[in-house]
Amino acid sequence: MMEKAVFYHAGCPVCVSAEQDILEVIDRSRYDLEVVHLGQEQARISEAEKVGVESVPALLLGQNVLHINFGASLTDVKNG
Amino acid sequence: MMEKAVFYHAGCPVCVSAEQDILEVIDRSRYDLEVVHLGQEQARISEAEKVGVESVPALLLGQNVLHINFGASLTDVKNG
Repeated sequence: MMEKAVFYHAGCPVCVSAEQDILEVIDRSRYDLEVVHLGQEQARISEAEKVGVESVPALLLGQNVLHINFGASLTDVKNG
Repeated sequence: MMEKAVFYHAGCPVCVSAEQDILEVIDRSRYDLEVVHLGQEQARISEAEKVGVESVPALLLGQNVLHINFGASLTDVKNG
């Protein structure tokens, strides 16, 4: 069964660089990976907060959030 | 060709949790993953610093370092 993974980012340079690495490294035969640009999809910021995302880029795996490097806090994303 | 990936950690709870996720998510058919416990292999701390690791847990992919969450700074690891 495919597991769900969500990569949250905000288009910042740190995010873009991490996104390339994550898309490359993740086992796509086992993970269904969705990429969410929170700068463009502001409606999903509250969803991201709910699952435990505190900064972007972040990778949600099941119920675990991996915060990767540090691009921007969600507060900054909310404030545009 | 297998690419090389190195997961550096120091045995801290954040490290152990991230390690489980990384071992799970990484595409092992394409990445040859080495796990290095810097607390036990202090001789490799300078190698980690050289490739750009600033805190653990961290994943080295080619020349890129992904710092994952925040367990401990390398300075803390050096000081035991």
